[in-house]
Amino acid sequence: VTLADLDTPALTVDLDAVERNVARMVGYCAEHGLAHWAHVKTHKVPQLAELQLAAGATGLVCQKLGEAEVMAGAGLAPILITFPLVGEAKARRLAALAGRAPVSVGLDSDRSARDLSRALADAAASADVLIECDTGLGRTGVQSPGEAGDLAEVVDGLPGLRLAGRMTHPTRPESGPWLAAARRELAARGLAAERVSGGSTPSAYATHRVEGIGEVRAGTYVYGDRACIADGTVPLADCALRILATVASRPAPGRAILDAGSKTLTNDPGPGDGRFGLVVELPDAALEHLSEEHGHLRLPAGGAGPEVGERVTIVPNHACGAANLHDEVVAHRGGRVVAVWPIAARGRVR
Amino acid sequence: VTLADLDTPALTVDLDAVERNVARMVGYCAEHGLAHWAHVKTHKVPQLAELQLAAGATGLVCQKLGEAEVMAGAGLAPILITFPLVGEAKARRLAALAGRAPVSVGLDSDRSARDLSRALADAAASADVLIECDTGLGRTGVQSPGEAGDLAEVVDGLPGLRLAGRMTHPTRPESGPWLAAARRELAARGLAAERVSGGSTPSAYATHRVEGIGEVRAGTYVYGDRACIADGTVPLADCALRILATVASRPAPGRAILDAGSKTLTNDPGPGDGRFGLVVELPDAALEHLSEEHGHLRLPAGGAGPEVGERVTIVPNHACGAANLHDEVVAHRGGRVVAVWPIAARGRVR
Repeated sequence: VTLADLDTPALTVDLDAVERNVARMVGYCAEHGLAHWAHVKTHKVPQLAELQLAAGATGLVCQKLGEAEVMAGAGLAPILITFPLVGEAKARRLAALAGRAPVSVGLDSDRSARDLSRALADAAASADVLIECDTGLGRTGVQSPGEAGDLAEVVDGLPGLRLAGRMTHPTRPESGPWLAAARRELAARGLAAERVSGGSTPSAYATHRVEGIGEVRAGTYVYGDRACIADGTVPLADCALRILATVASRPAPGRAILDAGSKTLTNDPGPGDGRFGLVVELPDAALEHLSEEHGHLRLPAGGAGPEVGERVTIVPNHACGAANLHDEVVAHRGGRVVAVWPIAARGRVR
Repeated sequence: VTLADLDTPALTVDLDAVERNVARMVGYCAEHGLAHWAHVKTHKVPQLAELQLAAGATGLVCQKLGEAEVMAGAGLAPILITFPLVGEAKARRLAALAGRAPVSVGLDSDRSARDLSRALADAAASADVLIECDTGLGRTGVQSPGEAGDLAEVVDGLPGLRLAGRMTHPTRPESGPWLAAARRELAARGLAAERVSGGSTPSAYATHRVEGIGEVRAGTYVYGDRACIADGTVPLADCALRILATVASRPAPGRAILDAGSKTLTNDPGPGDGRFGLVVELPDAALEHLSEEHGHLRLPAGGAGPEVGERVTIVPNHACGAANLHDEVVAHRGGRVVAVWPIAARGRVR
């Protein structure tokens, strides 16, 4: 079976490109003495997580507890959950997870630390904790090195929690001094927490220039997308995730309508240039609008353009968002289908 | 079990609100002698489609063949597929579907008509055809009444296809004269095709002002969303689809981070006001950005704001896009959970 045999739309992944992307990331990390933690939020597929671990990734990163449960269920570990978990239901699930796999968690509040501690202690389990530090993004994370020290002290005093380190997202030049100051705040309280985890695909290959970061969390690099092309992280040739689509309508000379819209490609703005994907065969055409199931393709003036029934290949704006819309992904090498994988951890919203 | 017992994020639907919305739509259509065709793209749940049919909807509309297969599998019919189907694989599936349920299809090209005819004739099955007319949106559909006449002639001459009518999306004031002109073009060729189907929730309640339209296709009205509030179609009190979320982080005085981001709420721009959902309990707070799993809520200056662990209820920008991200929806009446339904037709990208 080849890609040409598939009906559209179809989510496909080029395993040769995936392997190049993973080898590059693991190679970069090895060269600079960094550990690579592969973020599964991008693909949500245990088989690809396994490939990343086999290639040398140190561990897996999950954003949702439900993703972590799927990965652990496939025998994959260690796992780092970077979204702050709050509440008894999630704390109990974390404790159960920690009973069967080595788990670390990032958190930024007393409340989260106390919720997790209570459930872990009840289950006689434990988890490593990274203090999440906001080194400039303005999302989650404690706001100052002093707050990092205070929260570390709370964590250090709670049963079931092992104070392990600091984390931030994304890695920025200013993250180095910030996290070093946090280290001093911890030391002033008699605490050490030497794991330092930085994140994001766009910043990954500059991690060695940022003092003190030892781990690279990155996910999108494995697939690549239009945002990665735009920021220089992954070239088009290595964009592994592509959506096959068909021209369903050619109502007017300058317009083709594809059978892939926002429910297939995601309406993520990507590079923010008003395009919603790159049509590889028609680089001069502009995928300028998505309805839920229609891709609106503006064709350059003068050319004949594709006919109804013609197939095209789309690199989406955001690989993670696109993959999250599909129940399965078709893995191929050079166009020959080698597997169809359920996206086992998609839809795990909790 | 009540909504308060659910962990977050959770997709919930208020069945009392759904029933009000459906009664209003069916009542409007009855008052004006129109048929209501309920678009299942919004909810993708057979139980809700059944509720719509029981309340008086004439039939179901599907955008994807895979959605239609799920609905027919649940014994629900008749079905209209409005996205133009192209290619042998889909044509064969349509023929199989037409063998077990009354099916009509919209199409706008010779290619689509010929593909479907071949497969239907091979299977000794048939389907009704609506000629899709672009009366102003600039998406799919033939571009002139003359083209509608020409395509109707092709359809009329093909085995397995029954020329049944005309359709457009959305219903606009100019759709009436356009579709009437198409009717004259058909008549000039000795053809009649009296079903006339108009579409979209925002235009639904103005259909009676547009000459000659007999059917109202609408989907979003059943749930409502921020776009419906903005365009006046559904008031907040009748917005049935809501996402329960929790404040996962309160890193800074003006900022709360929710455990619902673009993979839970959709990053659909909705009314286009730079907000990504309405937090019902905090109407003065602005859900101004979504990461994949984080909702960035800007809090008004001066107030205390919610604490970590506090729960909120979000009306999404676009109900259809939000529902499509989830594997199940929790149905409740007055907060009491009455069912948890799989979103059986989600992920049916083909």
